[in-house]
Amino acid sequence: MDMPTTPLETEVESQQDPGPVRAQYADFDGITLESGVFLGPLTVAYETYGTLSPNRDNAVMVLHALSGDAHAAGIDEQGRVGWWDGMIGPGKGIDTDRYFVICSNCLGGCKGTTGPPSTNPATGRPYGRSFPIITIADMVDVQAMLVEHLGIRQLHNVIGGSMGGMQALDWAVRYPDRIKSAVLIATTARLSPQGIAFNWVGRNAIYCDSARGSSSEHDQAQPKTARGLAVARMIGHITYLSEETMEAKFGRKLALRDLNGYRYSLGENGKTEGEFEIESYLEYQGTAFMRRFDEDSYIIITKAIDHFDLESIYGDLTRAMENIAAKMLILSFSSDWLYPKTMSLTIMRALQAVKKDVSFVSLDFPYGHDSFLVKDAMPVLGRIIRGFLNGVSATR
Amino acid sequence: MDMPTTPLETEVESQQDPGPVRAQYADFDGITLESGVFLGPLTVAYETYGTLSPNRDNAVMVLHALSGDAHAAGIDEQGRVGWWDGMIGPGKGIDTDRYFVICSNCLGGCKGTTGPPSTNPATGRPYGRSFPIITIADMVDVQAMLVEHLGIRQLHNVIGGSMGGMQALDWAVRYPDRIKSAVLIATTARLSPQGIAFNWVGRNAIYCDSARGSSSEHDQAQPKTARGLAVARMIGHITYLSEETMEAKFGRKLALRDLNGYRYSLGENGKTEGEFEIESYLEYQGTAFMRRFDEDSYIIITKAIDHFDLESIYGDLTRAMENIAAKMLILSFSSDWLYPKTMSLTIMRALQAVKKDVSFVSLDFPYGHDSFLVKDAMPVLGRIIRGFLNGVSATR
Repeated sequence: MDMPTTPLETEVESQQDPGPVRAQYADFDGITLESGVFLGPLTVAYETYGTLSPNRDNAVMVLHALSGDAHAAGIDEQGRVGWWDGMIGPGKGIDTDRYFVICSNCLGGCKGTTGPPSTNPATGRPYGRSFPIITIADMVDVQAMLVEHLGIRQLHNVIGGSMGGMQALDWAVRYPDRIKSAVLIATTARLSPQGIAFNWVGRNAIYCDSARGSSSEHDQAQPKTARGLAVARMIGHITYLSEETMEAKFGRKLALRDLNGYRYSLGENGKTEGEFEIESYLEYQGTAFMRRFDEDSYIIITKAIDHFDLESIYGDLTRAMENIAAKMLILSFSSDWLYPKTMSLTIMRALQAVKKDVSFVSLDFPYGHDSFLVKDAMPVLGRIIRGFLNGVSATR
Repeated sequence: MDMPTTPLETEVESQQDPGPVRAQYADFDGITLESGVFLGPLTVAYETYGTLSPNRDNAVMVLHALSGDAHAAGIDEQGRVGWWDGMIGPGKGIDTDRYFVICSNCLGGCKGTTGPPSTNPATGRPYGRSFPIITIADMVDVQAMLVEHLGIRQLHNVIGGSMGGMQALDWAVRYPDRIKSAVLIATTARLSPQGIAFNWVGRNAIYCDSARGSSSEHDQAQPKTARGLAVARMIGHITYLSEETMEAKFGRKLALRDLNGYRYSLGENGKTEGEFEIESYLEYQGTAFMRRFDEDSYIIITKAIDHFDLESIYGDLTRAMENIAAKMLILSFSSDWLYPKTMSLTIMRALQAVKKDVSFVSLDFPYGHDSFLVKDAMPVLGRIIRGFLNGVSATR
């Protein structure tokens, strides 16, 4: 899928050692949400990589998943590597020598864009659980405001996995003249009842948590060390991994082992310590997430994911697809049981039914839903995405 | 698989309207657990159905799963129908006109057999989280004590699904001369890391619960209305159902619907109300379970399930199987993703490798792991089990 070089390549200057990546912020008066509620003021945190071409026609918008943020690539001032650094950069899948890449934290998030941890101007305190209901469409509308703010009339591409893929699809459906192409990775036009059920249970783990309590009037000054969010994240991690990866990576190996071949220890807080390695892994992931994420953002964003349903809005998925003008690429992973291949095929068939320009690739990575984030998948994924993006340049 | 009638049929008198089923109790001084800890005194709650033959050779021991109890069949004094009433009774799969059926609550349970809610004689208070570690083998040893107590030298059969199937397998391996046959349903010789992970997350939902707190010194007099156990049960329910059943039964149907097609309501305790039907279903199941089960039993029993691993104990699964004398029947369900068919095949192949008498049936019910409890599966399951049980009578 290697494509010939395009004129763009000569228009964009290579960036030499750009230094640490810094978040930028765009401020808006507010937005009227799909529910009718006005939310304002509104801040959007974003990062950019590469250089916008003089024609402003080389912008690629990267859309993060549930737990992502604006820091998609490079190294920030705290030394953290971006969540998709393997994909975005000079010579990579999304080549910053060629494209101007934008990634913003989604509406409702907790990493700089307005969300539950932001101050509610009506009360002077954080919104917390009083943050209004938001939808995937609201998130996309905020992204469109940012794109306009940056003076970009049309994006070369929108690309995202999981929830980011829902947004990419929504962009294609509702902003047909604002994007030239879209890449949908490991996503769906609507979540399965099983996916809804897992999200529901995760939220319920948060609701029954001891550290924050079940009151919506909890003390916002209290440090958030709530285990409920850790448990929710653990549930998520199980669904993001394939059974095959779990077997290969952890199996039934014990992290601690006594002479009887097992160890059952209660920590001083009545909490078990990791025993099987899979338990230690989940404990680590859950605890780390608890420290870096906001539980009310988790609640509000998972609800938005659950309710995304183009078929329900348009009455029929093909009707939703009718307006699409973008060249579409759909990628799915055979080991993904949360957003299985059948869901991607449903989108593809609806696009084909209304004769849209769509390519579909199913990849046999063993890593499950998270394949698009796994380092070992980057060479193959990067080649496919680079080829697609350059093909869009060449043909339009 | 219909078998000819056997002499047993004439030996056993039919029971006419036996009235409500009553739990019985057997008391023992105690048991030395696999860990070396002595646990005593020990009470075992059990029920029986049908009549023990004069030769005491028609006893079938039914082994319940994680959330089961001794009340397997008939209607008890509170009007509750037994958890496997569709399988056990006159003319049913396990025919009480022919067999004397025993079902006991497992060690560590909370329905009459000694477990965390029982009084610790050393303190005069319930064991709670100080209850010692138990294993599947400990549960089986207690069942064997009960069988001896009932004056039965050899069981015609042991039968169970899920954790009950683990016990049936352990019976066959460690008590070869005490059983004539065993039926293993939707079970495994060891749980997958994914299964371990789901159990770990369920326990962690309990540990972070607000109502009981994380202290092992919680007030035992406090009513158990802890949501953590409900969340753990919800996770379990997702894994017990197939994706196919969830789609057919719930899909994305909403339990409540406003004009915008969705409703997002926070109850007065910050708890969401059911919104999608799958959410209402899980909420109902979780809440009901919370009221009828003990969270410390849940912890101790899921740990026993996680640690069951014949390969680890015997070094090799075929070596574990070498002593088996029982005629074995293994049933698995193609829609069961928690205890998938491959796990049953692993047991079957190990049995075949050491030339044991084993039959294997894979059934295409759409109901997932719970197929053995689903009413619509009873006619087929009952026919297979009845045929197998009668075949054992005829040939031995």
